Formats: sequence, C-alpha cells, structure tokens
Amino acid sequence: MTTVTSPRPVATAAEPTVDVAALEHVLLGRWGDLRKATRELLADPRFHKVEGLPLAEHRERVLGQLRLLVSEGEVLRAFPAELGGADDHGGSLARFEELVAADPSLQIKSGVQWGLFASAILHLGTADHHARLLPGAMSLDVPGVFAMTETGHGSDVASIATTATYDPDTQEFVLHTPFRAAWKDYLGNAALHGHAAVVFAQLVTSAPGEDPVNHGVHALYVPIRDPQTGEFLPGVGGEDDGLKGGLNGIDNGRLHFDHVRVPRANLLNRYGDVAEDGTYSSPIASPGRRFFTMLSTLVQGRVSLDGAAVNASKLALKIAVTYGNQRRQFTGASDTDEVVLLDRQEHQRRLLPRLAQTYAQAFAHERLLATFDDVFSGRADSDTDRQDLETIAAALKPASSWHAMDTLQAAREACGGAGYLTENRLTSLRDDLDVYVTFEGDNTVLLQLVAKRLLSDVAKDLAHIDAGTMARLVAERAADVALHRTPLTRVVQTLADGGDVRRSVGQMRSTEAQRELLTDRVETMVAELAGALRPAGKASRAEAARLLDAHQHQMVEAARAHADLLQWEAFTAGLSKVDDEGTRQVLTWLRDLFGLTLIERNLAWYLIHGRLSAGRARVVGSYVDRLLERLRPHAQDLVDAFGYGPELVRAAIASGAEAERQDEARAYYREQRAGGRAPRPEPKPERAKA
Amino acid sequence: MTTVTSPRPVATAAEPTVDVAALEHVLLGRWGDLRKATRELLADPRFHKVEGLPLAEHRERVLGQLRLLVSEGEVLRAFPAELGGADDHGGSLARFEELVAADPSLQIKSGVQWGLFASAILHLGTADHHARLLPGAMSLDVPGVFAMTETGHGSDVASIATTATYDPDTQEFVLHTPFRAAWKDYLGNAALHGHAAVVFAQLVTSAPGEDPVNHGVHALYVPIRDPQTGEFLPGVGGEDDGLKGGLNGIDNGRLHFDHVRVPRANLLNRYGDVAEDGTYSSPIASPGRRFFTMLSTLVQGRVSLDGAAVNASKLALKIAVTYGNQRRQFTGASDTDEVVLLDRQEHQRRLLPRLAQTYAQAFAHERLLATFDDVFSGRADSDTDRQDLETIAAALKPASSWHAMDTLQAAREACGGAGYLTENRLTSLRDDLDVYVTFEGDNTVLLQLVAKRLLSDVAKDLAHIDAGTMARLVAERAADVALHRTPLTRVVQTLADGGDVRRSVGQMRSTEAQRELLTDRVETMVAELAGALRPAGKASRAEAARLLDAHQHQMVEAARAHADLLQWEAFTAGLSKVDDEGTRQVLTWLRDLFGLTLIERNLAWYLIHGRLSAGRARVVGSYVDRLLERLRPHAQDLVDAFGYGPELVRAAIASGAEAERQDEARAYYREQRAGGRAPRPEPKPERAKA
Repeated sequence: MTTVTSPRPVATAAEPTVDVAALEHVLLGRWGDLRKATRELLADPRFHKVEGLPLAEHRERVLGQLRLLVSEGEVLRAFPAELGGADDHGGSLARFEELVAADPSLQIKSGVQWGLFASAILHLGTADHHARLLPGAMSLDVPGVFAMTETGHGSDVASIATTATYDPDTQEFVLHTPFRAAWKDYLGNAALHGHAAVVFAQLVTSAPGEDPVNHGVHALYVPIRDPQTGEFLPGVGGEDDGLKGGLNGIDNGRLHFDHVRVPRANLLNRYGDVAEDGTYSSPIASPGRRFFTMLSTLVQGRVSLDGAAVNASKLALKIAVTYGNQRRQFTGASDTDEVVLLDRQEHQRRLLPRLAQTYAQAFAHERLLATFDDVFSGRADSDTDRQDLETIAAALKPASSWHAMDTLQAAREACGGAGYLTENRLTSLRDDLDVYVTFEGDNTVLLQLVAKRLLSDVAKDLAHIDAGTMARLVAERAADVALHRTPLTRVVQTLADGGDVRRSVGQMRSTEAQRELLTDRVETMVAELAGALRPAGKASRAEAARLLDAHQHQMVEAARAHADLLQWEAFTAGLSKVDDEGTRQVLTWLRDLFGLTLIERNLAWYLIHGRLSAGRARVVGSYVDRLLERLRPHAQDLVDAFGYGPELVRAAIASGAEAERQDEARAYYREQRAGGRAPRPEPKPERAKA
Repeated sequence: MTTVTSPRPVATAAEPTVDVAALEHVLLGRWGDLRKATRELLADPRFHKVEGLPLAEHRERVLGQLRLLVSEGEVLRAFPAELGGADDHGGSLARFEELVAADPSLQIKSGVQWGLFASAILHLGTADHHARLLPGAMSLDVPGVFAMTETGHGSDVASIATTATYDPDTQEFVLHTPFRAAWKDYLGNAALHGHAAVVFAQLVTSAPGEDPVNHGVHALYVPIRDPQTGEFLPGVGGEDDGLKGGLNGIDNGRLHFDHVRVPRANLLNRYGDVAEDGTYSSPIASPGRRFFTMLSTLVQGRVSLDGAAVNASKLALKIAVTYGNQRRQFTGASDTDEVVLLDRQEHQRRLLPRLAQTYAQAFAHERLLATFDDVFSGRADSDTDRQDLETIAAALKPASSWHAMDTLQAAREACGGAGYLTENRLTSLRDDLDVYVTFEGDNTVLLQLVAKRLLSDVAKDLAHIDAGTMARLVAERAADVALHRTPLTRVVQTLADGGDVRRSVGQMRSTEAQRELLTDRVETMVAELAGALRPAGKASRAEAARLLDAHQHQMVEAARAHADLLQWEAFTAGLSKVDDEGTRQVLTWLRDLFGLTLIERNLAWYLIHGRLSAGRARVVGSYVDRLLERLRPHAQDLVDAFGYGPELVRAAIASGAEAERQDEARAYYREQRAGGRAPRPEPKPERAKA
C-alpha cells in the first residue's frame, strides 16, 4: 500500500514545498514500521466496518475480526516473551491505535480483550494466574469482560458496591451485588460473548478472631458463562445494554452476582492477598496508594484512546481537506470558474487550525507513548515516572478525544450534505468516537485530577484525596508555586510595551514568545487557584468542599491550559525532527497557527492579566489570517502526510470523484461557450441597468 | 397528558419560586393550544421513533406515520380554506415543529411533503395547478419530491445545471440533466416513495424568431414514478443516497432526467410563464428579484427548523437536568452522602448557560413565527416585511441548529456512559439534528446573507449579489452606518470608568447595560466591516473578491453577534409576559446569565475595543458563577416548564429510575450502618496517619 497523494494547486516558485514522504515518516514515528504493517493488514476489507449492519451481525463480525487479529495481527506484543508475546508495550499500543481506521468497534473490543481483561490478569495477577488464565485470554479462547464500572459508580471507582466476602470455611470469596445501582454496567463482551470476567469488588475478610475489614477494591477472575451453551452460570445474571450512540460492534451489557462463590486462588493477588485463614496482606501498606497502584497498571487504555482519537482527527481532515480542495461553489473573481471551497477564508478557518492542533496532538501522543513504553518496559518506572505518565495521559486523552469530536463535526459540516451521508464516514466516526470522551476516565474528571497534580507535589493518593486533605495540600503547595515559575516577566513585558504592530506580530511569531505566553498562563492560573484555595486548609470539611467546588471550573480550565502547553511543546520539539527545509518552514507556520490560535482563544485572559496590550491583541486575529493564507497551498500535502491510502480513507467524496464531476461540468460549459450553444442570460430590465 | 414535574430540592423560604404551569403557558405561546394538542397526539406510540430499525422498515414506518397525520394531524392548516385547509400559517408550523419530539424523520418527511412539495405547488403555481395537483399532494396520494439541490450545487441554487428547454412544436419542456454534477441529490422521497417531483431547472425558451434565452431557475411539476409499479417513468433515473448520519426514516435519493418531456401546463407559472409560441413573461421584471421572490415563498422551512431545533434543545436539557438532579457521585462535605451532580459547579456550567440560551431561542422563535404568520397571512407583507422575515430566519436558524447540536452533545456528556445508550435518546436526537445546520440553507452561507443585509439597505437581489456590486453597496452604506448607531457611548463609558467591582457587576446586571454592550458590538462590527470593505468599491472584480473573502470570517462573526442580540432582545421582551413575581425573578436571572455568558464569550472583543476595563472584565466570570448558584435550585422547574411529559421525553435516565436506584443504595448503607453490619474500612498505616 503506497501513499496516495491528491491533486493540488501548483506552488509558485517562491513557495516552500513539503516533502510528503519524509513528513509521513516523521509522523509515523518510532513505531512507524509497526504502524505501516498494521495499515497494510487493515487494507483488507475483512476488517472494514460495514455500515448499517444490524446490531447482532455487527457484533459477530467484530468478534470474527478479533479472531483474525489473533492469527494475523500480532495482538500479543505487549505480553511477556515466555508467554508468546514480545515485551513490546509501545509497539503493541501503536498497533492497536491504528485499528480505529478499520472500525472503532474493532479497536475498542480488542482493547477490552487484550488491553483490559488479559492485561488485568497480567498486571494484577501472579505466576499461577499467568500460567492458568492468561493463555485463554490471549488466544481469545476465553472472551473476557472487564467488570469494574457499575450503574451507580463510574468515575468514583473506589465507591463501587459489589462485595467479595471471604469465607474461610470453604476458602472461597462470595461475590455479591447488594442492589440495582451495584450492577456492573457498560461492559464490553458482557451482553453476549464473554465467558469470564475480571470483577472488581470491595474485598471483605477477617483475620481469625477479628471483625471483618473492607480492604477496598480488588479484582477477581470469575467465570460467568458456560462456554458450551453461552448461558450464564448459576448466580450470575445480566442484561444487554442494547443499542448505543456508536461502537455497536461491541456487545456492552450489565452483570450482577447473587452470592457467587469464587475460589480463593482466583483473587488477582499481586497487590493484595488473602491467606487460607482469612488474613489479608499487601506489599503496599496504604490502602489508597494500593488502589491507585492497581489502577495505574491500566493506564494504557487512556494512552491508546489518545492515539486512536488523534488518528480519527487525521482521517476527518484527510477527507474534508481533500473534498474542500476539489469542491467548487459560487463564483468569485471569474464569471465562469467557481471558487474551490478551501480558497475561502471561512473554510480555511474551519479546517486549518484544527489541522494544526491535530499535528500538535500527534507529536504529543508520540511523546506520551514513549513515556508509556519507558515506564512499562521498566527502563524508567519510578513513582514519579508513573505519576508523570498518568498526569500526561489524563491531560492528553481529554484534549484529543474532544478535539476528535470537534474536528469530525467541523469536517462533516464543511462537507455539507455530502458530509452527512454515511458513505463519507464522518458521521459514523463521530458516533463511534463520542464515548471516548467518557470512558477510561470521564474527561472532566480527568482534568480535575490533572489540576490536583498541578496543585500538589504530594502525588500519592492523588485522586482519592478528600476535600479537607486537598485543601491542606494546596495550602502547603501555594507557597512553593512561585519557585516553579520561570522568569517570564521580562519577555512578556516586552510584548506589552510599545512598538509598531508589525513588530509585535513578529514577536508573537517567535517560539520563545509563544512558549512564554502559554507557560505563563498555566503557571498563573495554578498560582491563582492555589491562592484562592488556601483558606480551605483551616476550614471545616463542609466549607473546604464548598470552596473547592466554587473553583471547579477554574481547575478544569487550568488543566486544559496545561494540556494545550504539552501539545504545543511537543509540536515545537517535533520541528527538529524534520530535516527538509521547506517542510520545516511549513510545519513552523502550522505550529505558529496552533500557538496563535491558542492565544486567540484565550485572548481575554491575556488582556485581563495585562500580558498583552489591546493593540497587540487586536493583531492576533489578522496574523492567524495571514498564516491561513500561507498554509492553504500546503493543506493537501499536510493531510496526505498522514499516510492513509484509499483503503483506510474509504470516503466517496475523498476518492477523486468530486474532482471528476467538477471537471466534467466545467468542460461541458467550456464546450457550450466555444460552440456558441449556451443560451444567453435574460437581460436585466432597463431600470436595473441604470 | 399532564405536565409531570420531578422531585427537586426544597427551596428555602427566601427563595423565589417558579410557577411551573404558568411558565409553561408562556413558553407554549400564541399557538399553545395547537402545540398541546399535537403533543397529545404524539403521546401515541405509533408516532414514536423505534431505535435500531433497519433502514427499509424505518422508512416505511415514517411513511405510515405521515398517513396517520393526514387523518389525525391537521397537516393541512396552512392551505387555503377552499382546498380543505385553514389559512393558518403560524399554527401550521407550530404543529410541525412539535413532531421532532416523536421522531425528527417524521418532522422532516412531513416538511418535504407539505412544507416543500405541496407548498411549492401552492406558492409557485396558479389556479390550474391548485385544482389539478394540490389535492394529491395534500392528501399524500401523491408523495412528492422537492428537487432543487444538485450534487454540484446546494448553497448556490442559482447555478443549478438541470435545464428545461421549451419546444413550441409540442408545447412541452424538455427536462435534461447534462452531466453527473447536475443530478438532483439529497432529496427526501426520491429514493423510494416519491411519485412526482417539483423540479427546479434553468428555463430556456425563445420568442418566435429569437435566440434562446435562459430565464433562470423555475419550477416544474414532473411525474417521476409509475404509482402502480413504483418504477421510474421513461427518461427518469435515480439512486438511493443510502444510510445517512441520521434521519434514516426518510428515503433521500438522487434523480436525473434524460430529455424528459413535461407539458407546458406543468410549469409552476406564478412568477414566470411561457406562452404557446415560446414567449416568456413574468410579473417581476428583474431576473434576480424574481429568483429571490420564488425562493422566499419557501422560507417556512427555515422557520420550522428553527422551532424544531429549539424543541430538541429543550428535550436534551429536560433529560440531562433531570438526571443531573438525581445522579450522585463522589462525596463532598459528608462521609456518607454523595453529591448530586447538578450541585457541582462544572456541571452547572455545562448545563445552565445552555438552558438560558434555549429560553432565549424559544422566545426568539415565537417572535419569528409571529412575523412569519404576519407575512404569510398578508397582514404585513411588504417587501421590507418579507426581507426582515428572511433575515431573521437566516440569523436564527443557524443559531438554534448549532445550539441544538452543542446542547445535545453537552447533555450526552453530562450524562456520562448512560448518555451514550440509545435508550436515553441524546445520541439519536443529535444524529438526527446534525443536518439541520446544513439543509434549508447552510448555516455559514446564511450568516453571510445576514451580514450582507446588515451591510446594505439595498436588499433586492441581496443574496445573488456579485463581489463588485456588493463592494459598491458597502461603500454607499458605510457612510450611513453612523446614523443607525444609538447613543451608546455614554453608558458604555460609565462601565469602563472607575467604581468598585460590586458596582460594576450591578451595572452589568442591568437590562440597559446588557442591551448596550450587545448592541454596540453588532453595530461596531458592522461599521468596521463597512469601512474595511469600502476600497472594494473602486477595485477590480478580482481585487474586490479578494477583499470580500479576506473579511468572510468577520462577516460571519458579525451575523452571529446580530443573532445573539435578537435572542437576547426576545428573551428580555418575554420577561414582561410573566405575571408571577417569583417566576419573573428567576427568569430575569436566567436572562442575565444568557447576557453575561454572551459578554463572557466575547470578552476579548470588549476589552480590545475599550468597552470594558480589565477590572470589569475580570468579574464577569464570577458574576456568571453567582447566577449559576442562584439558578441551580430552579433548574428542574425551568426544564419542567417545557411541558414535555414522559411519552415525549422517553429517556430511561429521566424516568425517575435513577432516583430510585440512588434511594435504594443509600437505604442499604444506612441500614448497614444502623445494624452495625458494615465492615470497617482498613485502617491507614501508621506513617500515613502521622
């Protein structure tokens, strides 16, 4: 499969040119060979989403695709070599992320089986589980369910209500669902295909002679269906979640347990174990830290959603830019030639800033994936490394999933009625991507975690922190914030001072000025938050909770600003990977467009905080417009460099059909004019002429 | 069907209360009885969308629903009394708008049949057509197609390529599709059900002895299918558009014509006729004005989309606010009680400003519908009245359709994973509403029309204006703009001047201050645009086109600001319709929230233009937060007042089931604590305690 480039306007001599193949190579990144191999595999129509399939057929098709992946897709790379894997964590995720181009249901159902179900056995279990349970999970002989979320608790996993109570007489856990809100819910593979589940429950046990203690959330391996009949095992019940807004190739469902007995050996006991007599033990003394350590082994879900969301944005822009480069509507300077949509300013405004952000996110994701690989390979897995990984993932996954939704919708609208047809994929991808903003951590909740991390160096028990503790941490932290501030004031001051408009635009174009404006904003927001929250340290719990809540929006905004900065820094670092001068020039304009768009979006903040004068702020918009003009001739190159061939784009309007239709129509009119066959237009009445 | 109100927090004594029934009455407006009757009809499950139906079944179901409407739905109100209608234009649209709550496909397919197909016969045809063709269209004996858009031309209808060439020898028109881009496309009823079509084509004819002249776009009534067999008639061909992002109850498709002969009598000849000998005549001398007069008879499509989009936003908020008022997650001030989502600031930020805008749009739509009724009833149908109607519709339909998409998505995300389940309707409504931003005038194109109208008093040939003419009009207009400016400077100046923060908040809360800030922005933007475009008056066509395009984004933004103002003014006027004092107080806060949110959204503009000082701008956000706190206790009342009973809401999470689940879970834990049966939590290790 080779990269297909599309027709584009001929660049004038003075224009830099983009080396599309070299740029594609940079974008494919460290795991580029694996990504390309996966795309070649996915060119096979057997992996493609068939639109409009009835629910049951779509579910069966995706299950079948998972089986194909087992034999052809190297889905086991992340597992240990001794179990048939390759100990390749980054490469494994890179492959899974590419699946979104075939069918997002395929990506997510694969994620359920190998990224959640089998991974939980690997990371939360020990040698016996690996030997006894992993082979079935890896080979898909045992389709599995990751049963964590309940109808009543999604974001607050620590409060799930399912209990696993140890019975020393039989050496079993009694797994039980106490009420309706405690049903496990939204679980992939639960409605139909799952034979076993990793079930998260409050582990209750007592040492001999002592009262029962709740040791918090632990995971157990629980068979749920008879593999022969597909019927639920005794005590297990469930429900189909039915149709969803998208991802209907996955059989999401609900599970509940009525005093189901699970052998002691099925407790995934790496971080917490129960002896025969009921005595609990754990290598991690703090219950809070233990809980977050267990959850942190599952961070790969967020990482791969980030990568897949960026890929969805790339597809959206490949489709919309290609169509916008061929579609014509309304005449402009000419009587006979209609204007190509992408030559219109508003069309550029709709698509090019989103293209810039997609590039930024692609570079940011590559960094995240490298960090993930460092941690999971053990090359750099200190507590701080893990916390950094989690914070970056918690910042980037919201940014990229919201961006994908925004970009898919903008692309769909930019393609007009054609964008609404399912054959052009944009609505289908949007429907599938929608829930990426919710699962593996609701975006708004994740951003609050990021804000807490920004506010606090005390990262253990980070997310589980209650209002009082949080307030105290913030109070301690507030004093330190100043230390972390780089000496921004000088340069920012320069921007606020006098000088003509051209010079101020030149200044904002500089990498340093953009960096300082973006960094300053994050640091100032965090410092302001810390100051505002300081009184909570001495307040009552109720008052502290009220104060925290009154700043929830500011926390979310600060975390977003941090995510913006991460993306901008990654894009800026990425520029150095580009050797070709013309390509680097164009990418630098694109990075500038991203930086300036961020500043434009938050212009009021910069004005209120005196970081930009009104005069400087006024020119940001016109500089964005100038960048749009410069980038417009390169738009097609920039989307072609994503490297998606027609088998992965699969949108009728991006197939070249529109260009053919336009050429045919223009040829017809040209011929009519040349042959004098065109009827003359009705003359305007005399008074209108005057 | 009575209004079902939901449980809500008990208001404190000092709080004003909302008279929900009275507010519902105000919101239902002038055509409230018809709206209520329609909702009662739609409570019948026969009208409800069945999710997940295969394409073919959904299409048949909606066709069947249209037949039910013929017998039970008073769909003919807008038609003349002598033909069985009621000459009730506003009331008719009010009824159609309500259909969206049953199934948006039902609303839009009804719109195709009665709002487009039959309406075109009524408004573009004459007595013979009314007698001969309307009865079948009205009774649905002849399901019809409105064949205007082509694959190659949607927004620029004047450039469609289908031709109708008069042949005096046979007194027929020869209807022909010259190339692929000229296929009619995206047409409801075209794929399957349509037996006839109103086809728009370039009308070419010649007076005896003269060369053929193209008189521009005209409409012809064309049978397309054999009603017995359902097969295309000779020379007619077509294609199914297939699956769409939504509205799959409508059989959209393509049509093309190969020298199809249409009797001369089938030209809908109210605005342009061809005599037996081929001589063309029209009551409107200017071809441009004639074209826009023909199109303007179809403005009701935009009006009813505006109303339906507002209704979709109401449904979204009814669902999300009800759920957010029952769903609990994370503890706050209490160890045992989790916090109701809507008590969280960020949740309020997501939902309440959108609720405020939905109210504004509801009041704005009521005004638009009244204007529409005045024009179409003939009570006020001067050229200016019609142009005002078109401009308001072109401003409001983009605002409400984008707002519906934004609100449905925000509501879906605010409901988390539950929001993604089809049973909760939010994704389904979003998918159906998506194309409302494109059809009946692409939002971005409509906003440019609004901007042109704002820029130009010379309203004839408004939309068809070429770049040179536009530039000249603008140049003339620029001098006049100052005349239209109300004396804002004084009050705005006061806001920028000194005084403490509390006072400035108080000032921005005042109706006059909000009005002046919002009005000033529109007028200044238009004046700036006019100034910037002035040089185009003397420029070459190419240069004028370039200049116009360089300000396209500003034009769109100015039109949006105008639409914001229209909504705000309508909301403000609406306050006076509320007699109950408490209700009016709460609605006034809601109007303030809308006004302040608009100012917050455009804060950079106010700062750059010196309309607000940095100090004043800084408090806008905190005043928004204060309004959220004030409005929060009334949120349920405000969505209950939309008057949708359970048959129209039909979302499992808004049915009370969530409250039941939460109550059951809390009762369980209470009982456990009371009975001493709750296992104690694992103690924190010593060092963590220290």
